[in-house]
Amino acid sequence: MRVGVIGGGQLARMMVPPAIALGIDIRVLAEAENSSAAIAATAVGDYTDAATVLAFARDVDVVTFDHEHVPQDVLAALVADGVVVRPAPDALAVAQDKLVMRRRLTAIDARVPDWAEVADAEQLGAFLADHGGRAVVKTPRGGYDGKGVRVVDAADGADDWFATGGTLLAEELVDFRRELSQLVARRPSGEVRAWPLVETVQRDGVCAEVFAPAPRAGELPERARRLATRIAERLDVTGVLAVELFETAEGGLAVNELAMRPHNTGHWSIDGAVTSQFEQHLRAVLDLPLGDPSPTAPWSVMINVLGGPEGQTMPERYPGAMADRPEVKLHSYAKTSRPGRKVGHVTATGDELDDALARARAAAAFFQG
Amino acid sequence: MRVGVIGGGQLARMMVPPAIALGIDIRVLAEAENSSAAIAATAVGDYTDAATVLAFARDVDVVTFDHEHVPQDVLAALVADGVVVRPAPDALAVAQDKLVMRRRLTAIDARVPDWAEVADAEQLGAFLADHGGRAVVKTPRGGYDGKGVRVVDAADGADDWFATGGTLLAEELVDFRRELSQLVARRPSGEVRAWPLVETVQRDGVCAEVFAPAPRAGELPERARRLATRIAERLDVTGVLAVELFETAEGGLAVNELAMRPHNTGHWSIDGAVTSQFEQHLRAVLDLPLGDPSPTAPWSVMINVLGGPEGQTMPERYPGAMADRPEVKLHSYAKTSRPGRKVGHVTATGDELDDALARARAAAAFFQG
Repeated sequence: MRVGVIGGGQLARMMVPPAIALGIDIRVLAEAENSSAAIAATAVGDYTDAATVLAFARDVDVVTFDHEHVPQDVLAALVADGVVVRPAPDALAVAQDKLVMRRRLTAIDARVPDWAEVADAEQLGAFLADHGGRAVVKTPRGGYDGKGVRVVDAADGADDWFATGGTLLAEELVDFRRELSQLVARRPSGEVRAWPLVETVQRDGVCAEVFAPAPRAGELPERARRLATRIAERLDVTGVLAVELFETAEGGLAVNELAMRPHNTGHWSIDGAVTSQFEQHLRAVLDLPLGDPSPTAPWSVMINVLGGPEGQTMPERYPGAMADRPEVKLHSYAKTSRPGRKVGHVTATGDELDDALARARAAAAFFQG
Repeated sequence: MRVGVIGGGQLARMMVPPAIALGIDIRVLAEAENSSAAIAATAVGDYTDAATVLAFARDVDVVTFDHEHVPQDVLAALVADGVVVRPAPDALAVAQDKLVMRRRLTAIDARVPDWAEVADAEQLGAFLADHGGRAVVKTPRGGYDGKGVRVVDAADGADDWFATGGTLLAEELVDFRRELSQLVARRPSGEVRAWPLVETVQRDGVCAEVFAPAPRAGELPERARRLATRIAERLDVTGVLAVELFETAEGGLAVNELAMRPHNTGHWSIDGAVTSQFEQHLRAVLDLPLGDPSPTAPWSVMINVLGGPEGQTMPERYPGAMADRPEVKLHSYAKTSRPGRKVGHVTATGDELDDALARARAAAAFFQG
């Protein structure tokens, strides 16, 4: 069994341990030497170049992704060549373009914030007028971790983006209580498995902490599971689907974003679930029966480690962190540290949320102090 | 941080996932292309050749082992060259030669079965006469998984081995209730951490099943922990030390064998402990603070998968096994299947031992049926 992953970031990196456990031959097409997934990189090249990707894909049973940026024409060339691509290009298109995503989610009656495609300042002004004078504006493509997202309160607030061409997505500012995330995995033959709904805390548009399961959630877990399952089925997603959600002021759910790959809000599952999102993604794209996503502890808390101004690596701080918190699981992505860059994460599990949170924060502080 | 592992078997393979998690650069000197640890193999060569091993070792912070077969003259050359070797050659010597092991264990007052070094049939006959006419005879070096071990009841029962030169180890046949195994890890600065004592079931001299923790063990866990800690300290072991034990008919403990590396009886810890033996071994040889060896579930059961006559690989049987037991953790070593060869293992965890055992056996049956 041979899986090819396009992209050599930390998501590809974290697919390697379960591939080793299961005896799956994992191969990575990385962007550069010394990528985060270098240990499994069998090729280094440009994922926007069809010939490069085709040459990489010919030796594997299925191609999957570390990110959503492979162009549709490259994906089409793979499919035309007989390569099995999961998720398939039609599904991936929904995750690649936020306007396509809003259209498709609206078409399948999944609740999303009020939105409009806006082509210029005048249309943005009209949207603002209808939504209390403030809105979120997003570039349809290429945004991540708060990039390509902006809150505006004037019609000319996105003129720089309009100047680069194309339309933008304007969305209402949702009055939400908190952010949640529902991950499911689906295999081509139809089986779907869901992890517990989790709560995510964002800082500056970047995921900072995840609590699994989401505390005080009432009936939301069941509703989120049904919603994510329906999205996975209607969009024909294979592999892991992450559905980022708002819990609205009225206690409902609205879809914020989708990702069709393992997701930051699922990293807790490596240490806190029977089957991690990375193992499950491999099973799903190989059309193997899915593993049990049940949690192994009452509570798991995942905290991202962001690069600091000093540029230190996580391992430099291991002596202090490991001595203080021998039970916290440490994950370093072996990436060059830059301020704000995700360079690793830590996970603590426990019988009480407060305790797991305190221990995870104590460990994370060694890397961010 | 860079760790070099000599030997490309499944133990080296299983060190790779925790190295990836911790961002440790792991490099393997493998015996052959397509070794079990091929994903981390940076060199292929003969571990008995000092120049080969020196060239491999020069780029790493510490050298450790997948097996105990690196000759002492090669280890001495490494140390002379300034390479950090853990466990150190003097400690490893005890695991390399069963006669040295019995002498050292006797010298530190660790209880072992009655034993003698025998040079010929006459001496073996004298030992038999003193021990009821039956004894276990072992070749001092190179034995594993029942190889190099034989029960004899006549003075000429080991003549073929005597004919190859050298002395043999003769041991009393211990009247034991069951076999147990105590794993500890020790780092150079002195910290020692112990996993729970486990029960091991052997078939044909090969570890078949492991129950963690050992059921109905009374005070044995505390005694085993103290014994293994003392052995680790007195022999100056660094890394993981496995102490294979007999629970004697009188309810005491006697040391059967030692191994100074991750051990088959610790594989359950990958899925059943906060810190696995493979992560702990990496921490220990890097002199990092040790992780928490506590179990994550009340019971874990590990069952080895041995190659069958059909030579099928584990992944070929995944569809059935995964559909039937989505919660059992499957491990394939990506080794060519030969009858009786360890090609993988499965681990089930649970609140009840009987339940975990039944589920592990159900999963294992798919690979051995």
